[in-house]
Amino acid sequence: MSSRILDVVKSPADLKVLTDEDLGILAAEIREEIISTTSKTGGHVASSLGAVEIILAAHSLLDSPKDKLVFDVGHQAYAHKLITGRLDGFQNLRSYGGVSGFPRPQESEHDVHPSGHASDSLSVAVGLAKARVLKGTDEKIVTIIGDASLSGGMAFEALNYVGHAQLPMVIILNDNEMSISRNVGGLVRHLGNMRTTSRYREARDGVQERLETSGRVGRGLVNFGRGVKESVKQMVLPHTMMFEQLGIVCTAPIGGHDIRVLKETLEVCLAMDAPVLMHVVTKKGAGYGHATKDPERFHGVGPYDIATGKGPAKKEGAPPSYTDVFGAALVREAQADERVVAITAAMQGGTGLKAFAKEFPDRFVDVGIAEEHAVGMASGLAAGGRKPVVAVYSTFMQRALDQMIINCALPNFDVVFALDRAGLVGEDGPTHHGTFDIAYTRMIPNMKVLAPSDEAELVHGLHTALAIGGPVAIRYPRGSAVGVPVPEEPSVLEVGKSRILREGNDVAILAFGRMVSRCLGAADLLAEEGIGVRVVDMRWVKPLDEEAILAAARECKLLLTAEGGVISGGAGEGVLSVLAAAGESVPTLLLGLPDEFVTHGNTELLAKELGLDAHGIARQIREKLSCENQSVDNQ
Amino acid sequence: MSSRILDVVKSPADLKVLTDEDLGILAAEIREEIISTTSKTGGHVASSLGAVEIILAAHSLLDSPKDKLVFDVGHQAYAHKLITGRLDGFQNLRSYGGVSGFPRPQESEHDVHPSGHASDSLSVAVGLAKARVLKGTDEKIVTIIGDASLSGGMAFEALNYVGHAQLPMVIILNDNEMSISRNVGGLVRHLGNMRTTSRYREARDGVQERLETSGRVGRGLVNFGRGVKESVKQMVLPHTMMFEQLGIVCTAPIGGHDIRVLKETLEVCLAMDAPVLMHVVTKKGAGYGHATKDPERFHGVGPYDIATGKGPAKKEGAPPSYTDVFGAALVREAQADERVVAITAAMQGGTGLKAFAKEFPDRFVDVGIAEEHAVGMASGLAAGGRKPVVAVYSTFMQRALDQMIINCALPNFDVVFALDRAGLVGEDGPTHHGTFDIAYTRMIPNMKVLAPSDEAELVHGLHTALAIGGPVAIRYPRGSAVGVPVPEEPSVLEVGKSRILREGNDVAILAFGRMVSRCLGAADLLAEEGIGVRVVDMRWVKPLDEEAILAAARECKLLLTAEGGVISGGAGEGVLSVLAAAGESVPTLLLGLPDEFVTHGNTELLAKELGLDAHGIARQIREKLSCENQSVDNQ
Repeated sequence: MSSRILDVVKSPADLKVLTDEDLGILAAEIREEIISTTSKTGGHVASSLGAVEIILAAHSLLDSPKDKLVFDVGHQAYAHKLITGRLDGFQNLRSYGGVSGFPRPQESEHDVHPSGHASDSLSVAVGLAKARVLKGTDEKIVTIIGDASLSGGMAFEALNYVGHAQLPMVIILNDNEMSISRNVGGLVRHLGNMRTTSRYREARDGVQERLETSGRVGRGLVNFGRGVKESVKQMVLPHTMMFEQLGIVCTAPIGGHDIRVLKETLEVCLAMDAPVLMHVVTKKGAGYGHATKDPERFHGVGPYDIATGKGPAKKEGAPPSYTDVFGAALVREAQADERVVAITAAMQGGTGLKAFAKEFPDRFVDVGIAEEHAVGMASGLAAGGRKPVVAVYSTFMQRALDQMIINCALPNFDVVFALDRAGLVGEDGPTHHGTFDIAYTRMIPNMKVLAPSDEAELVHGLHTALAIGGPVAIRYPRGSAVGVPVPEEPSVLEVGKSRILREGNDVAILAFGRMVSRCLGAADLLAEEGIGVRVVDMRWVKPLDEEAILAAARECKLLLTAEGGVISGGAGEGVLSVLAAAGESVPTLLLGLPDEFVTHGNTELLAKELGLDAHGIARQIREKLSCENQSVDNQ
Repeated sequence: MSSRILDVVKSPADLKVLTDEDLGILAAEIREEIISTTSKTGGHVASSLGAVEIILAAHSLLDSPKDKLVFDVGHQAYAHKLITGRLDGFQNLRSYGGVSGFPRPQESEHDVHPSGHASDSLSVAVGLAKARVLKGTDEKIVTIIGDASLSGGMAFEALNYVGHAQLPMVIILNDNEMSISRNVGGLVRHLGNMRTTSRYREARDGVQERLETSGRVGRGLVNFGRGVKESVKQMVLPHTMMFEQLGIVCTAPIGGHDIRVLKETLEVCLAMDAPVLMHVVTKKGAGYGHATKDPERFHGVGPYDIATGKGPAKKEGAPPSYTDVFGAALVREAQADERVVAITAAMQGGTGLKAFAKEFPDRFVDVGIAEEHAVGMASGLAAGGRKPVVAVYSTFMQRALDQMIINCALPNFDVVFALDRAGLVGEDGPTHHGTFDIAYTRMIPNMKVLAPSDEAELVHGLHTALAIGGPVAIRYPRGSAVGVPVPEEPSVLEVGKSRILREGNDVAILAFGRMVSRCLGAADLLAEEGIGVRVVDMRWVKPLDEEAILAAARECKLLLTAEGGVISGGAGEGVLSVLAAAGESVPTLLLGLPDEFVTHGNTELLAKELGLDAHGIARQIREKLSCENQSVDNQ
């Protein structure tokens, strides 16, 4: 084992002494490590394998952390982690206490920013470049961004700005011809045109001869100093004019798995000390056949068998995921109402819309990574008499808050927001937890917010959201549903009406969404101790069921709220507001996510850590009751 | 008066019978009406005058409301309002109960969407076009968007999508060579290149001959049917390639104040039934010399004298605006600390940064209309050791929520968010009220939130925000400050510490920001009735001063919270959360904005209407106290 180069590379500086051949060997070792680890932990395999050589080439030229390597959607950064002192922790990738699956400044001085949401790297790099100019220093700034991320408006805003401000930075366009789903948009077609050029085909096929020539030219160029810019211009293809028109010099496409060519080209680009887009062609999953064959499945994957590429067989009779239940339910809604249109932002599979897209291709819209446009387009569809359902992860909908408010809620348009991955998401961690949506939806006038507690409720909830009109958000968690039967005929739920799942008059728990089943578990535990716990499935975050809240306050000694989002601004505070308005006074405990960014790791473990599993909830109730009794005794 | 064409135009359909000459006369009448009204009411003069002919040409060809005319930043829509049945109400433009200054679906069936935030029209139009395709109908969709709005990422996302999906819509690019401030970005330079062409100059100079020729060609083209697309292609200039590369056909620039040419070109574009960008060159303020000379001042202006263009003289000794105090304070901070950088999004004047830009041109960044990039760039500047202050209106910061969370708060970077226009803004109404920022900032971990109660507090607050590090939001209202002296030497405020401004033990008001002075007024009124009111200037929305809250709860009979934002998710709920966690029970009344979109009108009138002026606050306290006394009597 100690014969591996990887074992002696403790920081990027160690790459400097390696030859290009050594770097090639290191790349192979890194691939093996990534495959070996992710086969046990799961992770983002395809994009990480695709970016190995780019990362090695960049770090062998840069002097990190003085120089900055900025990742866009940093799940491609595993190679970066392995050569920046995190080889040992890599075995525990994405697990609680282990190495994060994304760059994280708190984890390493080599991680510039917490990269998890697409299209943000260019803005961060622009800021770093501006800081450099202001400080009069000379650190280099390089960003790695995939072709799919360019469709995000934020990336365009940054390109537009940097073309104007002419700040020194190299944008490595990691062009792998696909995003998570199939890419969308005119820009993609534009890249597609570039891909028909012979230069691109050469790059893709990794033709060595041509590259060696340009390599020598490249080396020469660096020494020319001021002459560099003009000479490099000759490397530019007419098809790149779109970026050129924004004021950014573009290189012709080069092969992304040839370390020597990558280094030589990057060296030229860095020497220009201006905004340069370096076009690199890579293959997702490169070096692992199963991943190159099915890069979408290997985008983010659970544990798998290395030899076959297959994951463990799904357990017989295991409950479906909320995502799948949503997808099937939306197909049924669309069969019954031709006005239903589904919109996703590059997450066809992730949001469960594959069957919908197949059955209703005309009524399925994938806008690419472009949440703002997704919600804006939904408002236009609603204005045109359609019933759009925007299916986006809770965390990514943060990108479209303004459009929810101004374009949908203000005109009271019929738009349904299906917020998947609401609450803790587990291994992906703080950039992906959906912890804010309760707060940011319930503050919006006209908005109604549903939090189904199981898959049957999700089906009824979606049906309700489409039936009642106006803007409605429905939030549901990542992962397996509860396992209850899914209704054949969904019903319209009464707006703002909860349901009592368990009677009791000592304590009342007002629970939302996934917390309901945990609270039922806590009630079971407390029942053994003779404590009668009422469990209310609140169903609606907004409007809240005031009657149920006041009844609980009047009939029980202690009130608990339990939700899968931050407490600040959450549903529990809404309950307090109802109590205050009615002049009701009862000891109330708010359970939810704390005022901190929750780390990554198994969702159940995280919940336990936060005291939000059945035992934790029961414990907090016990403590609060004993506290209340004491204060009564002291009176 | 009744000899005016304007008086007989009751709906856009009435334009059909008018000749181009009549339309020209109508344009002049509309200009006169806009100037006459806005000289009394204030309003968005320059852009509204610039768009008169475009609007008349579009409506004379369209069949609204079946056909859709979609505005981007609808403050240019006054002409549209005047010919869609709102001439009578126009006298009360922007005042309470009068016509809104922006398109508003609730106001007219001709207003497609509530257009107030830039760059959203294209997405709305795309949705309408998609709805049309799905319905199999044939309504026409036309959007009017200014050149400045194109820098917003949302507009790019929509262009990217429509180029791919090839949905039928005409995008009228209203190119007036400036946004609110000077335009920024590579795209602008690109438009600038187009502006050097002879075709553009002809368009700008309104050369008739050339236009008449193309007019005849245009008419002919319509009849050619399938041949149209190719022929129109010949009108396309190479410089428009950026849009073309996205898959959108572009016309050569035409003069924007010649109704005949506008109609002829639009007719051709509509006949193409594909995504077309129609490039129109206009002059901001056209038809009113003072506005063309100073379009930035006449962008949004108060009442003015028509002859001189001047507003009423500022009262001697009147307090400065919060905006001006902020701008001056930031200059002083920047003088003392070279790391301070100011960032704005096309609002140099609006956010008070003119003096800063002049004194520190290198440390002043205007990114154009691009809030996402503004905040992303701030995170990069912070990562690079600078101290960025992002000055953006509260309502526009909704565009960058995700960047506040992921790019700034998660890595705990030193970024200050200066949220101007927080709370009710008055005449601009619901698209511009800053009513959500308390809720959407306090939910974010690591974030600290200041709400200064007067201009001295703003100066201390800004100094504090820069001194304490981490992400800090500071929110302050539109308009005049209180009139207290501004400190020469700002102090660092203790984090999470309030100050008591008035002692009293009957009622305690925990007040935030602008509400503090109103609460002091209420306390004065109640003092006359023998009710002792403690008024606490909370200073911090986050962290809340728990000690002060609990002391108030223990020492007073009634607690009040008062804030200038929505109650759902607001600071008042945070106070309830503190009380609940401590097991304190005291009658508490939450004052703030209701769960509805507040209309437009004078801010003081709106506050009165909502019971948030001194008298309203006093009245609510009286009612609550009498209610409490009754319930005590009944026990």
